[in-house]
Amino acid sequence: MNRKKIVILGAGYGGMITTVKLQKMLGTNDAEITLVNKHDYHYQTTWLHENAAGTLHHDRTRIKIADVVNLNRVNLVQDTVVAIEQDEKKIKLENGELTYDYLVVSLGFEAATFGIPGLLEHAFTIGNINSARLIRQHIEYNFARYNNEKEERPELLNIVVGGAGFTGIEYVGELVNKVPELCKEYDIPREKVRIINVEAAPTCLPGFDEELIEYTMNYLESKGVEFKLGTMLKQVSADGVLVEKDGVQEEIPSQNVVWAAGVRGNSLVEEAGFESARGRITVGEDLRAPGYDDVFIIGDCALVMNKETGRPYPPTAQIAMQEAEVTAHNLKTLVQGGDKLEAFKPDLKGSVASLGHGQAIGVVFGGKKLFGMSAVIMKKIIDNRYLLKLGGLGLLLKKGKFNIFK
Amino acid sequence: MNRKKIVILGAGYGGMITTVKLQKMLGTNDAEITLVNKHDYHYQTTWLHENAAGTLHHDRTRIKIADVVNLNRVNLVQDTVVAIEQDEKKIKLENGELTYDYLVVSLGFEAATFGIPGLLEHAFTIGNINSARLIRQHIEYNFARYNNEKEERPELLNIVVGGAGFTGIEYVGELVNKVPELCKEYDIPREKVRIINVEAAPTCLPGFDEELIEYTMNYLESKGVEFKLGTMLKQVSADGVLVEKDGVQEEIPSQNVVWAAGVRGNSLVEEAGFESARGRITVGEDLRAPGYDDVFIIGDCALVMNKETGRPYPPTAQIAMQEAEVTAHNLKTLVQGGDKLEAFKPDLKGSVASLGHGQAIGVVFGGKKLFGMSAVIMKKIIDNRYLLKLGGLGLLLKKGKFNIFK
Repeated sequence: MNRKKIVILGAGYGGMITTVKLQKMLGTNDAEITLVNKHDYHYQTTWLHENAAGTLHHDRTRIKIADVVNLNRVNLVQDTVVAIEQDEKKIKLENGELTYDYLVVSLGFEAATFGIPGLLEHAFTIGNINSARLIRQHIEYNFARYNNEKEERPELLNIVVGGAGFTGIEYVGELVNKVPELCKEYDIPREKVRIINVEAAPTCLPGFDEELIEYTMNYLESKGVEFKLGTMLKQVSADGVLVEKDGVQEEIPSQNVVWAAGVRGNSLVEEAGFESARGRITVGEDLRAPGYDDVFIIGDCALVMNKETGRPYPPTAQIAMQEAEVTAHNLKTLVQGGDKLEAFKPDLKGSVASLGHGQAIGVVFGGKKLFGMSAVIMKKIIDNRYLLKLGGLGLLLKKGKFNIFK
Repeated sequence: MNRKKIVILGAGYGGMITTVKLQKMLGTNDAEITLVNKHDYHYQTTWLHENAAGTLHHDRTRIKIADVVNLNRVNLVQDTVVAIEQDEKKIKLENGELTYDYLVVSLGFEAATFGIPGLLEHAFTIGNINSARLIRQHIEYNFARYNNEKEERPELLNIVVGGAGFTGIEYVGELVNKVPELCKEYDIPREKVRIINVEAAPTCLPGFDEELIEYTMNYLESKGVEFKLGTMLKQVSADGVLVEKDGVQEEIPSQNVVWAAGVRGNSLVEEAGFESARGRITVGEDLRAPGYDDVFIIGDCALVMNKETGRPYPPTAQIAMQEAEVTAHNLKTLVQGGDKLEAFKPDLKGSVASLGHGQAIGVVFGGKKLFGMSAVIMKKIIDNRYLLKLGGLGLLLKKGKFNIFK
């Protein structure tokens, strides 16, 4: 038997869809498929902000890999990737080593901290299940501390969110629902709590339609969110942040700083020596790494240029999943001896940002704008379609979101 | 009108029963009754260990004062007592001042720290609603941190409870139920968590029957509790404790140190210049402070000698409530011009320590020992009787404990 070895690194959106597709498309004799992941579960990165706010339990967000991947067909190696050695076709793991014939790198994102002093040490990033539930507990712990202190300590109650992009805005939307619950739990007047959103761009949700932006800001401000737009985060310390707008600096006391203002590809792909910028590799049309015909890069580590706009596609779950489908198809072709690979052509369906319970905004590509409940419904449809694609009706019923009021 | 002013300091077991009795026994023209308390709620000190473990929500433990005290008859002053000036018959509050004709001091206990270095700074005490829910959140926060750390940090998971008396043992009993839930929530193997009980005496529950002690230790050890008896807590630091047994010292890494090893009366009574030892005043048979016929001291600040044993009665809820009944009766006599005061004679009914869900031990005075379910039932009866006495059937139904399996 001369079965090809396919190794998939990372069980995010891209890695999971690739694996699930391959286990259907390839026969047992075609290839040996190995999925490497840190945990025995997959999680929905796009739901993590809800776990970090505490409005959705993380067990709703994560899915046991064994529940959707057939472990008789796929080897699951629960380990951490230490290095990719593409010239030797080897993967170094914390507890072992793997060789491959074909590799799929779907290692996801890291927070981009832009060298802001203190950010790494004192701010939290919503990166995975562990960090999301830590943020939830961190904020709740500070609320619990508040009434035990002899002096007023506003830094315990002020929540600073860095970034008013997609994740930042969605997280703030959840906080708006969570904060009143925390106030009730710990006997704290709501007006003592500030939710402050700091964004360097002159607007929230840069790139979105103006009407949608206005709707978003009006809604969130009506719930007490303070926007500091056109404002740079200069420094984070143990007790607060220093921001600057138009040359004027301001200190905001806060021990609850959440950084949601930038992502970059996994630094392992840089260290491996692939040509990359901020951890993202500009891949070919067939999603292979330049110079390495046996390596596919998808998801947040891949940079795919949109020829029409001359700009790269954003690193979204939607794109990662579509890349995964093309990758699975191309791997099948290669394994079965073909060489005509499919080119990736994204089919952008739309984009919806949730703003907490019963509120959202979005756009369906083609141009239709969505506000409020219609956007909420669209968001649930997107989330539920993914579950259906990943694990069928069983998974949808188990993990789907059906209550449009929550 | 020459209405006497009765001021009651503290809405604990003693203060609440005194107030509720007085509002029934005295007519509006007899006296003006003022109850001073930090919060607008009363709480059951004997349930706080459950709140601190997170096995019972603190809203079950606290009772709005307005729900049981008739605020048309009683003035509720929500403030903090700063000083008692018994010679001027004045009470200094943080935000005001009161004068009285008769005073009831029922200010409760403080933790006795015996000068152990670092205890005040680094250990938690189960003292009130704020501190109990802080302990709950503190331990949960450390569990949430664990899987975010690069190195193994056992100090996040080790829980050290100082004292194997009533509160210490009851708290450990709750932890035994809570820890597996926390392990599940944060993906931590149960065997990584240590619950360590440190007690200077050679036994847990000193003063209790030997058979009950053995039952308690066997049960808790079977649930993974480590007892360090005859062991002194020498020092508490940010990262652990130093203990000593038979001259041999041991460091235990822990950021979860809960001190449940000693109480003393409120330090305000010392500062007021009453003759006292560790914040407790040896009162007369009629519960008045020596030299002050207009001041009653009850609850944890009072020391009442048991003439039969030559030792003081323990500062329990049971005693505080019985003292409150005598105090209310004696106040009525004084207000109405009488001078034959009743002497306090405690009627000790028994003592039950809960050990978590479905487990308890106790003794009914007269000598009958209780184990397991019969002790659990007795404990619920004691708790429920208090609610009935304090607020009638309505309060019992609202806050009572009826599920003997929890």
